[in-house]
Amino acid sequence: MTTTGVIKIDVVLQQLCRAFNTSPFFHHLNMKMVLDGQDIKCIVDMDDSLIGNVAFQILHGGVAATLLDSIGGIVAMGELYKRADKDHIADTVKKVTRLATVDMRIDYIAPGRGRQFIGSAEVLRMGRKGCTTRMNMHNDEGKLIATGIASYAY
Amino acid sequence: MTTTGVIKIDVVLQQLCRAFNTSPFFHHLNMKMVLDGQDIKCIVDMDDSLIGNVAFQILHGGVAATLLDSIGGIVAMGELYKRADKDHIADTVKKVTRLATVDMRIDYIAPGRGRQFIGSAEVLRMGRKGCTTRMNMHNDEGKLIATGIASYAY
Amino acid sequence: MTTTGVIKIDVVLQQLCRAFNTSPFFHHLNMKMVLDGQDIKCIVDMDDSLIGNVAFQILHGGVAATLLDSIGGIVAMGELYKRADKDHIADTVKKVTRLATVDMRIDYIAPGRGRQFIGSAEVLRMGRKGCTTRMNMHNDEGKLIATGIASYAY
Amino acid sequence: MTTTGVIKIDVVLQQLCRAFNTSPFFHHLNMKMVLDGQDIKCIVDMDDSLIGNVAFQILHGGVAATLLDSIGGIVAMGELYKRADKDHIADTVKKVTRLATVDMRIDYIAPGRGRQFIGSAEVLRMGRKGCTTRMNMHNDEGKLIATGIASYAY
Repeated sequence: MTTTGVIKIDVVLQQLCRAFNTSPFFHHLNMKMVLDGQDIKCIVDMDDSLIGNVAFQILHGGVAATLLDSIGGIVAMGELYKRADKDHIADTVKKVTRLATVDMRIDYIAPGRGRQFIGSAEVLRMGRKGCTTRMNMHNDEGKLIATGIASYAY
Repeated sequence: MTTTGVIKIDVVLQQLCRAFNTSPFFHHLNMKMVLDGQDIKCIVDMDDSLIGNVAFQILHGGVAATLLDSIGGIVAMGELYKRADKDHIADTVKKVTRLATVDMRIDYIAPGRGRQFIGSAEVLRMGRKGCTTRMNMHNDEGKLIATGIASYAY
Repeated sequence: MTTTGVIKIDVVLQQLCRAFNTSPFFHHLNMKMVLDGQDIKCIVDMDDSLIGNVAFQILHGGVAATLLDSIGGIVAMGELYKRADKDHIADTVKKVTRLATVDMRIDYIAPGRGRQFIGSAEVLRMGRKGCTTRMNMHNDEGKLIATGIASYAY
Repeated sequence: MTTTGVIKIDVVLQQLCRAFNTSPFFHHLNMKMVLDGQDIKCIVDMDDSLIGNVAFQILHGGVAATLLDSIGGIVAMGELYKRADKDHIADTVKKVTRLATVDMRIDYIAPGRGRQFIGSAEVLRMGRKGCTTRMNMHNDEGKLIATGIASYAY
């Protein structure tokens, strides 16, 4: 277990996952945040209710957008905690609470086919007032389905 | 009633709305395409299941993304039919069938508060192989909540 | 002449234009900010040095990107001054000085043909820590050549 | 030396670099495409004429936009040739000739400081009618300054 000052980072990341997993819309889509070591992933199983185009049986682009926005946001929050200074933990908590998406771009790379979709993210920039995160959504065969980049403010 | 060559455009737009309204994910979110004259709008009522942040009671960004992507796509399809030449109607049908989102940018302008959210779109560019559409989502008080711009290929 | 508290807004907007017009890269491209009432426009004349594709004699996309980024930035700065409260003018000056582009999307709508290109912008969102601006570049015949949307932080 | 059917790919990539290097605007900014094995890079040396903000002595964002758009485009063209089938080489040439930027997003990650800036790109999606490319611009110390993602049509 790692501690950043007084923060037990594993505990904090677990709490973030729990908070996202109880968000109503997130739950409505049956999405889940899971912790793999210190990396958070977002997972959603293919389901009839998530299909956009019945003829082609592919995931609706809005599901990918939701997943990418969410994994970008939670990974940014986790990074804020990882970099938190024990003397300024109140400031970090305030940033995490305020964090909101300013804008996002999604590129649809391949048709949304698969049994499961997995989202991951990395922080490209972490500034005083906002950050930039890159996100990917792969299917269960490791194929890149969609990629995103988003700016968050806090 | 207007006819573009052999196409009765009102009938075609009604059919497009019906097709979107039976898409599983669209239905799962309780979104609806409605025809107002020859303009298509996308409507969704606020609902507990669409909330992202319980503390602030605001719409999840993924709902806005789904609405913007959808209204952009259907308005592009409608425009393809409006510009269709009766001699090349088969070509238009093929384009509409193939139409897919290549990329989309969403800007979140104001917190997603309201009783209802309404999406509208306009085509900025219509090329041989793709088009560019701008989309807006307002709430029931006329406040701009989110704006989007997307490229579609066909 | 309008005054916002102690600020003479016309004078401030003139100063902003002057500051941009002396920026080396801006000058290298022969771009100019001009004040039309209280609206700032960005103007560039077509020139051999700005051509991207010799065969088609069209403006390089990078010229449009430079113009859109610049007009969005200066209009955001002007808006900060227009909304400035005389009691917090130091805060406004700090924001204007710090203002930097976080991200920008450009959509190329029509080939860059024309004798002159004119950029304009409007502020869509003005927050505590950043803003969102939409920009357009038309040619001298009023044709929309490119549109942009950008997030700035301050 | 590799040959793809009848194409000598090294020769083709050299020709692409030469074509870009004679583009007027590219030349005006003193940018250069260089071939490193089969990878094309775009290089620009810091110069007084490329500065946006004199006080901070940083590169104008428009220079980064030009570099990212250009490296994305040339790498997409190179990839079209690399994947070309000797039986359809005329089709590939037509695509390369037609290739144009549809839209681009740029994220500014760090202030544009450095003695030299180097752009690289990778193709994320290559479709029948268009492709998606991700681009990065680093400075001579290997620091990421800006990243982009663009859709091109052909």
